[in-house]
Amino acid sequence: MKKTLVEIAALIHGTATHTAGIEITGVTNIDDAGPGDITFAVPPHLDKAGKCAAAAVIIPDTIETFPKPAIRVANPRMAFTTLLSLFTPKPDVPPGIHPAAVVSATARLGANVSIMAHAVIDEYAEIGDNTIIYPHTYVGREATIGSHSLIYPNVTVRENCHIGDRVIIQSGAVIGSDGFGFVTIDGRHQKVPQVGNVIIENDVEIGANTCLDRATTGSTIVKQGTKIDNLVHLAHNVVVGENCFFVAQTGIAGSAKIGNNVTFAGQAGSAGHLTIGDNCVFAARSAPINDIPANSFYAGFPARPHKEWLRSEAAIGRLPDLIKKIRELEQRLADIEKK
Amino acid sequence: MKKTLVEIAALIHGTATHTAGIEITGVTNIDDAGPGDITFAVPPHLDKAGKCAAAAVIIPDTIETFPKPAIRVANPRMAFTTLLSLFTPKPDVPPGIHPAAVVSATARLGANVSIMAHAVIDEYAEIGDNTIIYPHTYVGREATIGSHSLIYPNVTVRENCHIGDRVIIQSGAVIGSDGFGFVTIDGRHQKVPQVGNVIIENDVEIGANTCLDRATTGSTIVKQGTKIDNLVHLAHNVVVGENCFFVAQTGIAGSAKIGNNVTFAGQAGSAGHLTIGDNCVFAARSAPINDIPANSFYAGFPARPHKEWLRSEAAIGRLPDLIKKIRELEQRLADIEKK
Amino acid sequence: MKKTLVEIAALIHGTATHTAGIEITGVTNIDDAGPGDITFAVPPHLDKAGKCAAAAVIIPDTIETFPKPAIRVANPRMAFTTLLSLFTPKPDVPPGIHPAAVVSATARLGANVSIMAHAVIDEYAEIGDNTIIYPHTYVGREATIGSHSLIYPNVTVRENCHIGDRVIIQSGAVIGSDGFGFVTIDGRHQKVPQVGNVIIENDVEIGANTCLDRATTGSTIVKQGTKIDNLVHLAHNVVVGENCFFVAQTGIAGSAKIGNNVTFAGQAGSAGHLTIGDNCVFAARSAPINDIPANSFYAGFPARPHKEWLRSEAAIGRLPDLIKKIRELEQRLADIEKK
Repeated sequence: MKKTLVEIAALIHGTATHTAGIEITGVTNIDDAGPGDITFAVPPHLDKAGKCAAAAVIIPDTIETFPKPAIRVANPRMAFTTLLSLFTPKPDVPPGIHPAAVVSATARLGANVSIMAHAVIDEYAEIGDNTIIYPHTYVGREATIGSHSLIYPNVTVRENCHIGDRVIIQSGAVIGSDGFGFVTIDGRHQKVPQVGNVIIENDVEIGANTCLDRATTGSTIVKQGTKIDNLVHLAHNVVVGENCFFVAQTGIAGSAKIGNNVTFAGQAGSAGHLTIGDNCVFAARSAPINDIPANSFYAGFPARPHKEWLRSEAAIGRLPDLIKKIRELEQRLADIEKK
Repeated sequence: MKKTLVEIAALIHGTATHTAGIEITGVTNIDDAGPGDITFAVPPHLDKAGKCAAAAVIIPDTIETFPKPAIRVANPRMAFTTLLSLFTPKPDVPPGIHPAAVVSATARLGANVSIMAHAVIDEYAEIGDNTIIYPHTYVGREATIGSHSLIYPNVTVRENCHIGDRVIIQSGAVIGSDGFGFVTIDGRHQKVPQVGNVIIENDVEIGANTCLDRATTGSTIVKQGTKIDNLVHLAHNVVVGENCFFVAQTGIAGSAKIGNNVTFAGQAGSAGHLTIGDNCVFAARSAPINDIPANSFYAGFPARPHKEWLRSEAAIGRLPDLIKKIRELEQRLADIEKK
Repeated sequence: MKKTLVEIAALIHGTATHTAGIEITGVTNIDDAGPGDITFAVPPHLDKAGKCAAAAVIIPDTIETFPKPAIRVANPRMAFTTLLSLFTPKPDVPPGIHPAAVVSATARLGANVSIMAHAVIDEYAEIGDNTIIYPHTYVGREATIGSHSLIYPNVTVRENCHIGDRVIIQSGAVIGSDGFGFVTIDGRHQKVPQVGNVIIENDVEIGANTCLDRATTGSTIVKQGTKIDNLVHLAHNVVVGENCFFVAQTGIAGSAKIGNNVTFAGQAGSAGHLTIGDNCVFAARSAPINDIPANSFYAGFPARPHKEWLRSEAAIGRLPDLIKKIRELEQRLADIEKK
């Protein structure tokens, strides 16, 4: 999609600072914006936005001077949300059931669903209105998927798992694989039945080849609005709060309880059977091994407060010098002792 | 499944301490047990079991007092194994070949196999008795799968790989992808043919989206009873012993030889071309880079004995204080030297 | 395949040092070679090759004495390349479209393509000459795949992605999943449209269950000759140069620009929005968080020059001793101060 600044201003009921020569091809945040993108900013982010690489910025109409092409609107956040939805391509998939799909006679399908070639919808499964199931995706017995969801190719949704509305599942993700539970008797690992399920609430996104294990009993839960990146592992009985971020290759061990609005950056992790408070942020590659209070910013492994981690890292960098200094001290002390 | 304590006692030929009001919905180990679960304990675990969250515990009939509801039996381990199997749901899959499966005329199928919709069994492959192949799973040319195995959706078993009896492969796992082998000639990486295979022995479980590369020549081997979690990587020519645990997101480099009863906790790893003795345990996120003797407990990267790792970690925590102390010492020494 | 040393010498126009009793079953590099393998060596690797486990070594015809069975040729590198190609098994897949494949009427297929059972080729997709698409692989709308490529089972190639010639994609890989981009407005994460694509140039290999996210706008790019192992994550808008190696479970964050001939060893990573120069090597589990100049060898997290990392690691090992030493110094100093 390509639109001029003036066209975009009209769409969001704003006023463009430049009336010619600016074409917008993408909509994104300040940090990722490149020369064809539009972004938005409200205080205290206006300075940063003024220096970013975006072609233009949506700003509040109370701002008089701004160093870049801009569109002034009453509510930049709302305007930006409108643009995001406008620039999101609608999947070009015809509604209906492809003749090469296999849909059980006992499955229930909503209105306008698309079940593409070679998808399999097993017995008593339910698919909500306007949901799209891509090829090679399997929806197991009695599993349910809400409306307006998008399930890409090669996804597995195992039996009895429940997925909400407006959920996006990227290719290769596995929802409801058995939890990793065994009891070792006389040196042999006996499988503990994993008879629970996975519940994914509304507006969640699940990344490519991410694995969410079903609970031993009860449910592994991902609450509404949480976004999970690629190759993430959530073990059995994990409960994740609302509006969290799990960046790629993070792994959460069994029965961890994670609050709302928590971020795990890339390649992070967490031990099992612990509780993470709301609004925590874990830096890339960090992993807590104990309960963490709300509003914490942690780093390192085992994870510790970010400031403490920075101090330790700096101290480690100075270690070779310290060793020299201690040798010196010893020498000076020996000299004194000799006297 | 839901059963009263008395019903369970009858099934395992034991005596319940309470005859009313206790319903059991799950069977699991002491650590994971919740209020609806039953677990078991023998010395020295009785104390721990007495304090755990389980609804009830199976204990030896020689134990007279126990602080929780219990069932006394002659052999708690055997009774518990019986319960595990009783509580394991049988997959609700009709036997037979679904008309939308593609099974080569040269493939050999045992009795009572289930080949579900859109599975593909390629030429000269063999599937043993009572094995279930879910949708979108591919079994390559001359690959074999034993009896009573369970291969979930979207699994790939490449040509010539061999899988034993009672093996469970979770969705998205890849068995027999090419090893990562190249020879760099004049700056270009030429592929080394990966003409070996993968052998998975009896009673192994393979996690979701886990990858086991085929050997360059010979076999990558996982011996009987080993359990592998999600998103694990085993490179070409790795040999894994019996009854090991590989927790999620662990990665083992090429040609590593791993003994029996070894545990790699989550996000662990190992360098290639080394030997790990029997009964070793690697803590989460640790990774050995040299041979490790049997019965070792290692942590950190590069992995070192766990006690040594604890000492180092404690010392790192004290580093900022040490730096202060050294500054003080310098000052005090300078004062003395001035005199 | 099995050949005698003499047969191989004839194939590569060389002279065998031994005329009987040596059978070769594999072709690989010096480090991985076992007793049935042949490898090659030129200065300065002749010593190492002389001590390796290979059955035989291809060496320059100017070398007179060598401690192992050998074949002398004018150009060992070229001879070895010939052998590699000779020992590579041709996939045993009949050309043609399997009746259970679904190929859109608008898709364009080259000569001699194989589209196996249950593959799906969506509208306007293009598949080049002699390319093989295994079962359960999805090629999305307007996606293109070049000639002589090999796409294993259960691969997803999303819409508009472009894949070159002689590319190998292992099972379960996902090409073109949505980048992980969100704008948080009033605490809720709104999806940023990911309307770019992925471009994979010629002679690239992609590992099993590896994920390459499509760009937000523009392209995520992997340049020619780069080889990527299993379970690797490349985020949106990453650009990877030519002839790189990404070993298993490595993850690269968004918009990182990586030069030519760069190696990331196993479980490594990189922060986003940075630039890595040509010929850099990152040790296993390392991860840069800033730009790195060309020709660097880095280790640790945050990544630092390998020598510096070694010094720090050694110093950490000595920390418990240092603490003791400091205590001693304090005592000695206190003794002096008392006087």
